[in-house]
Amino acid sequence: MSKIFDPHFAERVQASFARQNAMALIQATLPVVAHGMTEIHLPHWPGVEQQHGFVHGGVVGMIADSAAGYAAMTMVLPTDSVLTVEFKMNLLAPADGDKLIARGKVVRPGRTLIITQAEVFAMKDGRETLCALMQQTIMVMHGKSEKSEVGSR
Amino acid sequence: MSKIFDPHFAERVQASFARQNAMALIQATLPVVAHGMTEIHLPHWPGVEQQHGFVHGGVVGMIADSAAGYAAMTMVLPTDSVLTVEFKMNLLAPADGDKLIARGKVVRPGRTLIITQAEVFAMKDGRETLCALMQQTIMVMHGKSEKSEVGSR
Amino acid sequence: MSKIFDPHFAERVQASFARQNAMALIQATLPVVAHGMTEIHLPHWPGVEQQHGFVHGGVVGMIADSAAGYAAMTMVLPTDSVLTVEFKMNLLAPADGDKLIARGKVVRPGRTLIITQAEVFAMKDGRETLCALMQQTIMVMHGKSEKSEVGSR
Amino acid sequence: MSKIFDPHFAERVQASFARQNAMALIQATLPVVAHGMTEIHLPHWPGVEQQHGFVHGGVVGMIADSAAGYAAMTMVLPTDSVLTVEFKMNLLAPADGDKLIARGKVVRPGRTLIITQAEVFAMKDGRETLCALMQQTIMVMHGKSEKSEVGSR
Repeated sequence: MSKIFDPHFAERVQASFARQNAMALIQATLPVVAHGMTEIHLPHWPGVEQQHGFVHGGVVGMIADSAAGYAAMTMVLPTDSVLTVEFKMNLLAPADGDKLIARGKVVRPGRTLIITQAEVFAMKDGRETLCALMQQTIMVMHGKSEKSEVGSR
Repeated sequence: MSKIFDPHFAERVQASFARQNAMALIQATLPVVAHGMTEIHLPHWPGVEQQHGFVHGGVVGMIADSAAGYAAMTMVLPTDSVLTVEFKMNLLAPADGDKLIARGKVVRPGRTLIITQAEVFAMKDGRETLCALMQQTIMVMHGKSEKSEVGSR
Repeated sequence: MSKIFDPHFAERVQASFARQNAMALIQATLPVVAHGMTEIHLPHWPGVEQQHGFVHGGVVGMIADSAAGYAAMTMVLPTDSVLTVEFKMNLLAPADGDKLIARGKVVRPGRTLIITQAEVFAMKDGRETLCALMQQTIMVMHGKSEKSEVGSR
Repeated sequence: MSKIFDPHFAERVQASFARQNAMALIQATLPVVAHGMTEIHLPHWPGVEQQHGFVHGGVVGMIADSAAGYAAMTMVLPTDSVLTVEFKMNLLAPADGDKLIARGKVVRPGRTLIITQAEVFAMKDGRETLCALMQQTIMVMHGKSEKSEVGSR
């Protein structure tokens, strides 16, 4: 898709994910990190449910936002970090499954802005159902690697 | 803003909120429920943080989505329920505060669709900073009160 | 993708397009109408330009909105009509070409709501550049065919 | 709202508007330009109609996008220009009136990104009806005034 600026992008992304308490809180994992795409998995457990026993739409949004944001992070320099400017998500079906998979990918990499998409699937009895579709804008913070970036969003 | 169809809307909304495990998981509360608007409060605690120690953007989205969705629910019949069709959120500033307040309100009530907005503020040293702005579409499920609605999103 | 409810969907969609003065004003055409997808073409001419000589982003939005809305219309009954609830569009690159092509497709058909996407490409010297990406929510108006629908959006 | 960087912002915005052929094509005017807000007016005439005789939703989007984008342009340096990154619009009611008014305003000015909102009202028999609501992200192009900016969106 485009030049790989950092051969260690996967370690960098995994280290950032490991520092996100909110991802641990909902028991999300990041089993796939490739250049320009990632996957976040979420087991269905009682803590993430809404009132009808499905996974909460806001939790679906959390993993979609993060999967796409980390897809963007795979494409920046180790000295840069990324932040979400905005996202728009359509909820297409109840998040009814044993597990959710959010797949984030970069649609258009840019120097300052990276445009991404994410799809969230509910896995049930070996079948995938598309339950959410997201479109997102990510901003690249030049010269602000995650470790140095204390005062930013 | 429009006719109150159900004098007991606040109890109904509070009962629904109490059944959302995901809201308990992040320690969110619903201290304000008025006709066409609600407030969700979230204390800043380590479990909801992202990698820089601010509240995770996805968690900001969860409380914005829920505050606006419950604002819509205050305006429907007790025999109806509501679900989020889609939302779009701009993250304007880091969610840097002791507490977040999400204010949801109905912009346009309709028979089938209700359009809402939410603002999320970070409270720090007595000052409010607007940190997110959301626009949302809610669908009314006629004749499907929350208790009877088992098979829906 | 799903059952064809109306074998004459293409004629119905073309007749509706022909009644849209705004599409004629910008010189847009609808050369492709298939089940669940359409294409709108727009020649680059001075009347649709913005201040830098590219096609105006709002005009890009018009053809994206219409291409996706008509994709939805191919999937409803002849006695139904459709209207746009909302759309979100990212502008990815200047609309710099001799011609623009907006491709709309249905992502999730539903009884009341249909979720769609559109991509807009600029054609220049035989190359396509993706210049916009849209996600849209369409509402089905049951029992309101376009001819009978006078009082609705 | 924030410091005025350019006392001649209104002339600069009007000059840019005058160069947009697409605004002339739909007969839009820009009667109000203030610091952080603008108004675009559109007479209802046959050329901008959709199939039911209301103003086309895409045309509503054009004036909303432009009103908010120009609101952002009032707040940048004369040596900078602006471009639309993305916008999301809910259509709330048919654009049924003698005239439409799009009011754009800046919600959050920033060095690189400016977040805006727009409302579009239909005027009929002296009454205003809110018919669309938009949320938008604008990017500031530093050191690229409109006149010098030939190769950008």
